Amino acid sequence: MENKKKGVCAPQGFLAAGIHSGIKREKNDLALVFCKVPCVTAAVYTSNQVKAAPLYVTMEHLKDGKAQAVIANSGNANCCAPFGRENAVRMARAVAEAVGIQKQDVIVASTGIIGVPLEIEKIEKGIPSLVNALSEEGSSKAAEAIMTTDTYKKECAVDVILNGKTVKIGGISKGSGMIHPNMGTTLTFLTTDVNIEQNLLQKALQYCVKRSFNRISIDGDTSTNDMACLMASGLAANSLIEKEDSQEYATFVQALLEVCTHLARELARDGEGSTRLISCTVCNGESEDKAEIMAKAIIASTLTKAAMFGGDANWGRILCAMGYSGVPFDFEKTDLYFKSVSGEIKACENGRSLPFDNKLAKIILSEEEIHIIADLKEGKEKATAWGCDLTYEYVKINGMYRS
Amino acid sequence: MENKKKGVCAPQGFLAAGIHSGIKREKNDLALVFCKVPCVTAAVYTSNQVKAAPLYVTMEHLKDGKAQAVIANSGNANCCAPFGRENAVRMARAVAEAVGIQKQDVIVASTGIIGVPLEIEKIEKGIPSLVNALSEEGSSKAAEAIMTTDTYKKECAVDVILNGKTVKIGGISKGSGMIHPNMGTTLTFLTTDVNIEQNLLQKALQYCVKRSFNRISIDGDTSTNDMACLMASGLAANSLIEKEDSQEYATFVQALLEVCTHLARELARDGEGSTRLISCTVCNGESEDKAEIMAKAIIASTLTKAAMFGGDANWGRILCAMGYSGVPFDFEKTDLYFKSVSGEIKACENGRSLPFDNKLAKIILSEEEIHIIADLKEGKEKATAWGCDLTYEYVKINGMYRS
Repeated sequence: MENKKKGVCAPQGFLAAGIHSGIKREKNDLALVFCKVPCVTAAVYTSNQVKAAPLYVTMEHLKDGKAQAVIANSGNANCCAPFGRENAVRMARAVAEAVGIQKQDVIVASTGIIGVPLEIEKIEKGIPSLVNALSEEGSSKAAEAIMTTDTYKKECAVDVILNGKTVKIGGISKGSGMIHPNMGTTLTFLTTDVNIEQNLLQKALQYCVKRSFNRISIDGDTSTNDMACLMASGLAANSLIEKEDSQEYATFVQALLEVCTHLARELARDGEGSTRLISCTVCNGESEDKAEIMAKAIIASTLTKAAMFGGDANWGRILCAMGYSGVPFDFEKTDLYFKSVSGEIKACENGRSLPFDNKLAKIILSEEEIHIIADLKEGKEKATAWGCDLTYEYVKINGMYRS
Repeated sequence: MENKKKGVCAPQGFLAAGIHSGIKREKNDLALVFCKVPCVTAAVYTSNQVKAAPLYVTMEHLKDGKAQAVIANSGNANCCAPFGRENAVRMARAVAEAVGIQKQDVIVASTGIIGVPLEIEKIEKGIPSLVNALSEEGSSKAAEAIMTTDTYKKECAVDVILNGKTVKIGGISKGSGMIHPNMGTTLTFLTTDVNIEQNLLQKALQYCVKRSFNRISIDGDTSTNDMACLMASGLAANSLIEKEDSQEYATFVQALLEVCTHLARELARDGEGSTRLISCTVCNGESEDKAEIMAKAIIASTLTKAAMFGGDANWGRILCAMGYSGVPFDFEKTDLYFKSVSGEIKACENGRSLPFDNKLAKIILSEEEIHIIADLKEGKEKATAWGCDLTYEYVKINGMYRS
């Protein structure tokens, strides 16, 4: 991955910044991504019925499929709080005035605690210095400023050649709790300089989110504030992508999927309290959708997550999760494997226990990334989902979140 | 609750016993409930597709709606293990031979670790002394012998007068992990001396399980071994209950619901690692089913469970769980309350935060039983679900389950 460090600023036209406005005690809490030109823009939102005020404002602003800036704060979700809508609009207006664009071209997002009134004056006061700080090196600062319980920032970028032109895609994301499939996604801001029609950009985003952000779970709770947006400046000057069945569209989607998958895996790896990334592939299934549902049930199983924390190859919990996932399958044909850089064991064959080396299992499960493989032996399709282990630290973080 | 200590032995005709057969290292692990006469019998099973072998054997044995004994072991689930079916049949046969009944009249259940071969010889060797130990005082021993990670035994009994005759209902249950709504239930053995038709007994059991055992969640994992059965000896000699619209049926169901609710609440209270019982009522809803789905989503929310452990009135997580429950509602009409023996606070009105005394909130949430009340203000129906907090101890128990 080249340009990784440039993140959302890798594609042509984009600047970013992050500052401390005072919503959080000390850490940076206000991020801005700005493009020098108007962008065709796509977005997806949480499927939670209780949606935070900024999402409604953003939906309105994106009715025309265009945007030029993203303003986002951390430390307060602006959800179920007095003056939610008014404050979200004020955030957009302050940015619009400071950079000289329409407020309808500003995407607004918030993340943090639910139900506390947003201190909008602090944000408004911070926006001029935020705009001042905009730079092509600003992606990391923006990625930091949207973090909540994340322990590190998530950003990346890739290059891809379309019709002889280099197209770049960059992104930043934040976790790391209240994360569960069936959402739009967590907060993720993606940028690209590709030249593409808006309806195809939206299709590409949905295709990739389904296979990346919607295949992770940290804790089974679908957030009220989730959103992913993708702004395309067109400055790469490739010939306009306007056909879904074109080679260019396919190549672009593949590159976008690479960025989304990288960010989604990082979110899972840094899930609240996590000590390891759990990657689960259900293979040789009848359909990708069936495999996806099962893989998601496994990585979301509290008991499996706790076993992975303990380094315990308790495969019965995996078969159990597949059993309640709602997808019909023949467990008496199913094989289960645990795998990591330290080796591989087959723990179960045709739904029955196999003798395996417990000491080796312990070593395999002590690694930082663990693969669980469930082989259904009924077809050719597969899907991978990502999660993390359940730890004492998770309980600590969420028992004491507001103290 | 009279006769509470007699548990499954409270109704006329029933004996019970529990012994140590050697499946577990030290604790009692083999339970028997026996009736002097054949009983009309009802049962419900886990909805998990992966079902343990004893459940299939029990389903076959209960095809005629009759049984006379329950044999159950803890320490091993006899699920996904070699010779599962054969071993379950051997358990039934050994009991049948020892007490002189048909093996088809024996209900078989197992609970414990999945995937480990059952040491059937130990069970067969233990059954003669188990039968010897049968007594009218044996309910507590049986309740102990089915425990896994439970910290105390669950049993109860009630009396009810039907047409001038005293009818008794008793039960024992075990928890305390892999417990989640959508199941049949956990392991629960119920007895009664009521005189009733089998189809009505089955209806009564299903009605009560839906409103008790199926309204609890410990960890979101639906077990492979869950089952509840209800044996009716008829020895109370009340006139046969054969009509669903009779006063006697209604009275019996109400008493059965009392027993089931008591046991279900105890399972939630003693959930793995739990420090407190969380009781959640969604009220003034359009329908009981809608209220039930929402109440279950709230008590199953990992984030809400962790907040309750921390004594944190983080009501945004409750509204968030209602939002992703899948039930349409107007969150801008919803009020939320926290309540315990120490008082009550209203934390949210019409979907917006209310100022409340944080010190009082902390005191209220430090109690052993906490009530969460969500008022939808859209109708007259309500439902209550029960769960527990998420603690360090849960992670410890399930990270190290097999060590």
